[in-house]
Amino acid sequence: MPFSRILIANRGEIALRIIRAAHELGMEAVAVFSTADADSKHVRAADRAVCIGPPAPAQSYLNIPRLIAAAEVCNVDAIHPGYGFLAENAHFADVCRSSNIEFIGPSVEAMNTLGDKVACKQLAIASKVPTSPGSKGAVEDEGEALKMAKEIGYPVMVKASAGGGGRGMRVAHNDGALRAGLKAASQEAEAAFGDGTVYLEKFIDNARHVEVQVIGDTQGSVCHLWERDCTMQRRKQKLIEEAPCPVLTRSEAEKLCLSAARLAKAAKYHAAGTVEFLMDAKKNFYLMEVNTRVQVEHPVTEMVTGVDIVKTTIQVAQGDPLPFRQKDVKLSGHAIEVRINAEDPERNFAPSAGLIQAFNPPGGLGVRLDTHAHAGYRIPPHYDSMIGKLIVHRPDREQAIRALVTALREFEIAPTKTTIPLHLRLMKNGNFRRSEVDINFVERLLGM
Amino acid sequence: MPFSRILIANRGEIALRIIRAAHELGMEAVAVFSTADADSKHVRAADRAVCIGPPAPAQSYLNIPRLIAAAEVCNVDAIHPGYGFLAENAHFADVCRSSNIEFIGPSVEAMNTLGDKVACKQLAIASKVPTSPGSKGAVEDEGEALKMAKEIGYPVMVKASAGGGGRGMRVAHNDGALRAGLKAASQEAEAAFGDGTVYLEKFIDNARHVEVQVIGDTQGSVCHLWERDCTMQRRKQKLIEEAPCPVLTRSEAEKLCLSAARLAKAAKYHAAGTVEFLMDAKKNFYLMEVNTRVQVEHPVTEMVTGVDIVKTTIQVAQGDPLPFRQKDVKLSGHAIEVRINAEDPERNFAPSAGLIQAFNPPGGLGVRLDTHAHAGYRIPPHYDSMIGKLIVHRPDREQAIRALVTALREFEIAPTKTTIPLHLRLMKNGNFRRSEVDINFVERLLGM
Repeated sequence: MPFSRILIANRGEIALRIIRAAHELGMEAVAVFSTADADSKHVRAADRAVCIGPPAPAQSYLNIPRLIAAAEVCNVDAIHPGYGFLAENAHFADVCRSSNIEFIGPSVEAMNTLGDKVACKQLAIASKVPTSPGSKGAVEDEGEALKMAKEIGYPVMVKASAGGGGRGMRVAHNDGALRAGLKAASQEAEAAFGDGTVYLEKFIDNARHVEVQVIGDTQGSVCHLWERDCTMQRRKQKLIEEAPCPVLTRSEAEKLCLSAARLAKAAKYHAAGTVEFLMDAKKNFYLMEVNTRVQVEHPVTEMVTGVDIVKTTIQVAQGDPLPFRQKDVKLSGHAIEVRINAEDPERNFAPSAGLIQAFNPPGGLGVRLDTHAHAGYRIPPHYDSMIGKLIVHRPDREQAIRALVTALREFEIAPTKTTIPLHLRLMKNGNFRRSEVDINFVERLLGM
Repeated sequence: MPFSRILIANRGEIALRIIRAAHELGMEAVAVFSTADADSKHVRAADRAVCIGPPAPAQSYLNIPRLIAAAEVCNVDAIHPGYGFLAENAHFADVCRSSNIEFIGPSVEAMNTLGDKVACKQLAIASKVPTSPGSKGAVEDEGEALKMAKEIGYPVMVKASAGGGGRGMRVAHNDGALRAGLKAASQEAEAAFGDGTVYLEKFIDNARHVEVQVIGDTQGSVCHLWERDCTMQRRKQKLIEEAPCPVLTRSEAEKLCLSAARLAKAAKYHAAGTVEFLMDAKKNFYLMEVNTRVQVEHPVTEMVTGVDIVKTTIQVAQGDPLPFRQKDVKLSGHAIEVRINAEDPERNFAPSAGLIQAFNPPGGLGVRLDTHAHAGYRIPPHYDSMIGKLIVHRPDREQAIRALVTALREFEIAPTKTTIPLHLRLMKNGNFRRSEVDINFVERLLGM
């Protein structure tokens, strides 16, 4: 059944992105907002907007009863969770569906399986997806961990089963560090996720981050939309994302991408998702995790494949088959996204909230800007510092970098401090231009 | 020889467009500006900007000695004329080249041949390009005109050889009107172009405007980049442009496009140009004129072909071969451009100059904005009312229209009156949605 009205349980640029997709599909879009977001573009662009509470996420964007109430009052057919907030919360998906509101995302079962690192790894091994040598499941005690570390060889990584965003992770180079790391990771995971289960993996040095976009429908069809390279990170947060990965041949990439699609198919995945890998210097891949939602960096894939990922998530959620087959998904050119964060590089990249007085974006051929910000917009201090994503698409990577330099130079935001000067610096860096980087490259460069 | 620095002899959005292309090619860009344009984005984006005089075009953008002086002072290798102003002025091209500055455009000979309607038509007939029945060349006297009109049948059109933009043109439905029209058209042409020569053609009723983008290099290679439909006009000015033409099959379009490429090849054309046709209800084509420059509406072609037309004009001017062959030029999806003009629909679309206080552009997937305007920009009253071009690119026309509606709704410009409400009205019009339109459609709809 086609949806006639959907609610977007999110804010900012991704809410605006989803509203645009809904409108193009001829659907009405209902926005929700906290009192801190009344002036956001996503509120203006929606057909209807419901204030769901005060700024604190727990009282607004994470508040399930208020979201469901808004959805029921507005009589929507479905809820799109975007990314962050409740996007990977299986309980929310369950509550939506129990309330006869479709959750635009995977099944609860797929979220539970892929969201649990141990269960995900077991399914990956069964699906012949490259994983890290390590414990098959949770590590029961210190003795087992020490034995396992001896087998796979130091350095090893202790990881929380329920983990994400770097929390509940410890690297250990010897037995002593491993004993301490097990304890610390478990305690941190217990505090952060309410689950202290940890497991062990080989630690990959000088790794790159390569991830595969997958998407499936309720008929059982799953396609990959090729890979992205998100090696340019800072504090475990992606800063620059590219498609395709500059250092892979198409046949190397295809092998990886097909394995990711196999994993999604094994999980009966009928939504957009991302299978994240680390890649070592010899181009061996190691599964990190699966994100069961649309990703911040989805636009680079849209640019090089021509597939509207957000529109497709809505279509598959209403039961439509995927509008393309694997062999139709062709790559064209190169796309790079830089995250425009409101941060002050002079103050160790502390968030820089407050009023944007001047907002003068770049434009022209192959330049895309996804943002909810505008002149006169006051950045609320309560949320993520990302105020926009600047994406360029060009026939090749060198031209894309040049176009990005031009666009970044034109981009004026004042008096807010942003990551624009940092991106301009990175674009000129010889290692970045040759793509000789690893996930610690930015932090080393910045002396962090 | 690759250029290292070029000067842009233009203003506004097209100057900015060319500066961006130069930067992507690794060249420096020199802007020129009149005192009325000091605050334009094209001035900010350039590596160097030279004030060339007061607002009146004759004393600035049309002033050849001042432009050449600026080019010499800045030691540029070439001048890009953009569109309008001196873009089709063969004398300017000649002066540039005599001053050892490459003119980024066709040869003086090609400009002269294609710019003269009679000479152009003769070359078109020799190249088997569809033309209108009518006089082979200039009409010498009234008697010859009356005899010719009898042969081809009324209504007929009197046209100035040196004409353009609707000046020096008269439609005649009978002998009396033809006698009056010959005199009036000749006098008008004499006054406007210093050349009163006129010729006669069959008048095409309920025509559509279809044009073909061509581009050639100095090695003699010429390609077409398919066609555009520019039927949505008002006061002979294009308002909405699309690629491809919604009512042509690919084989119908290809036949036309190949004929346009033949004409360009016959003229030894080594630049970007547009061959404009009228099309009648039976899909017969009639050559109108050739524009020997880049066109306002070039972006729709860039979106559907992936070819960067402006970059290519610079490359072929420095002697590079075309970076593609005809068989590589594939169409992908549908693109629509709407011209954002600062005009007041309540005051019969009179130009609406003055300060833009709020300028809040749309964005996201497949949305392109080419503009020199920004919040705080004061639109000078001395030039064209166009302040930007909003272009969308989608897999098909219906999705493109929907995306355009979304983008137009998001676009906030205040307090300046613009064509945005008119475009929103046109996008909802059933005739436009079915593309059942002719070149008088907009004026009929508006009761003009």
